[in-house]
Amino acid sequence: MNLTPTCVTCIFSQSLRVCEKLQVDDKTTKKILDSVAGMIPEWSFDETPPQVAARVYPEIAKLLQTDDIYYDFKREATEHAKAFIPFVEEMIDKYNDKFYASLKAAVAGNVIDLAAMEQFDLQEEVAKVFDSPFEIDDSEELRKILQNSKNLLVVGDNAGEHLFDKAMMKCLKNLFPNLHIFYAVRGKPIINDITIDEAIEAGIDEVAEIVDSGVDTPGLDLNRASDKMLSVYKQADVVLAKGMGNYESLYGISTCPTFFLLKVKCSVVAASLGRNVGDIICYKESLHD
Amino acid sequence: MNLTPTCVTCIFSQSLRVCEKLQVDDKTTKKILDSVAGMIPEWSFDETPPQVAARVYPEIAKLLQTDDIYYDFKREATEHAKAFIPFVEEMIDKYNDKFYASLKAAVAGNVIDLAAMEQFDLQEEVAKVFDSPFEIDDSEELRKILQNSKNLLVVGDNAGEHLFDKAMMKCLKNLFPNLHIFYAVRGKPIINDITIDEAIEAGIDEVAEIVDSGVDTPGLDLNRASDKMLSVYKQADVVLAKGMGNYESLYGISTCPTFFLLKVKCSVVAASLGRNVGDIICYKESLHD
Repeated sequence: MNLTPTCVTCIFSQSLRVCEKLQVDDKTTKKILDSVAGMIPEWSFDETPPQVAARVYPEIAKLLQTDDIYYDFKREATEHAKAFIPFVEEMIDKYNDKFYASLKAAVAGNVIDLAAMEQFDLQEEVAKVFDSPFEIDDSEELRKILQNSKNLLVVGDNAGEHLFDKAMMKCLKNLFPNLHIFYAVRGKPIINDITIDEAIEAGIDEVAEIVDSGVDTPGLDLNRASDKMLSVYKQADVVLAKGMGNYESLYGISTCPTFFLLKVKCSVVAASLGRNVGDIICYKESLHD
Repeated sequence: MNLTPTCVTCIFSQSLRVCEKLQVDDKTTKKILDSVAGMIPEWSFDETPPQVAARVYPEIAKLLQTDDIYYDFKREATEHAKAFIPFVEEMIDKYNDKFYASLKAAVAGNVIDLAAMEQFDLQEEVAKVFDSPFEIDDSEELRKILQNSKNLLVVGDNAGEHLFDKAMMKCLKNLFPNLHIFYAVRGKPIINDITIDEAIEAGIDEVAEIVDSGVDTPGLDLNRASDKMLSVYKQADVVLAKGMGNYESLYGISTCPTFFLLKVKCSVVAASLGRNVGDIICYKESLHD
């Protein structure tokens, strides 16, 4: 999905949000805004938003003299999520259709802004996802494909959310015992995205084979993927991509059946999907050659 | 009120909104965004947001090859407002306290985004303002001052809104027959602000003496005011400044008792006033030397 004018102002505003979140002083914030503003003329409508973000965030990180802007935030989000996993697993258990419930669990991880919410709101938000329909629902097709699949590639998105993904994959392992699951993570810290360190720490390897994608974009950009990642992508029978960044990066170029599992959080993705901001989506993209 | 980091991203996003409103193609929009981005390092926290805007909007206008970006929009807003003035005057008539009701009428003009709303919503929105309390209400003090005033300076804000101001000033003329009212307009087209052409066309001169402030900022910046404007400001017993731009420009530097009459439309002004976005305000600032 290509950058739009709206993405330009959104990404610029994100650099302010980083500063606010990290309580950066106004003078340093201005330095960061000036620097990001200076990059804008180089941003192209031929790029995806994650490709642009992959240049912006390291620049912010450099000015903040850190390698991992959201390190503390990711740890906090993970701790916060951890407390909810028993509840999420209970929700999956409660449903007759555990497959469908496990998808809901995974999208619940994408719905919530783990840092922003109180424990109580989180529980309510997660419960709401279980009760909301997918506004695009290709989950039946995914179920059918998984019944005949050997290899599933799950593409992770944010830290914190990965624990919800783990609950989903645990369920999928039970339902499809012969399925081998790969879980792709970013190649280096970018925004609050999941990297190999967090995935290992969460024991994702108990339910899936963790793949370091090698990409530095907040979305699985296959053009930047490691050889290992490309080989996994080639052997996958089906891809389950979490969140908007992966949608923005993979939409329109998939050569493997790909299901996008996400909450629509911006008007650009909403327009691309023909749905509304706030909708939850389980969308299968038609194949491309 | 000085520029904040939030104002930086807001003003940048405004340049996108201009393009969206005028249905500018993506390529030209990018050119405008690039150009405005290039100005950001020059924006200073020692300036007011209107001072920055006074550089940004002419740059956008230049790239769009126009002198008055919102010319059509202002005409449309004025036509739209015109249809509501009988209703607004009826509302003022209906109230026992016509002075208070006339202030509500004037703030109703600042509340509504005339371009964005359907006729029906507009009526509802205007009616709502009459029913809502001022979250800061110094109107009694204004009433007292007006009883002993010779000269009132009303500082206009947006086109369309000026018709609501006219309804208020008509009422004030009746209540305070000896009051001479000046109505300040911008010195040249900036955003959708009121200029002398629209003021004359609306017959503002039937209720007030129109003053071309000479300022190019979307807020009355006294440092840029014409000699005539400064002389009017000096002889005014009280100033009634409409909208956020005038608040941003005059707050903290008034040498004349100044009442700010506005709807709070952004978090920065909300923080400055200690109130919330959406609140309506009639706020008297203490004098400065």
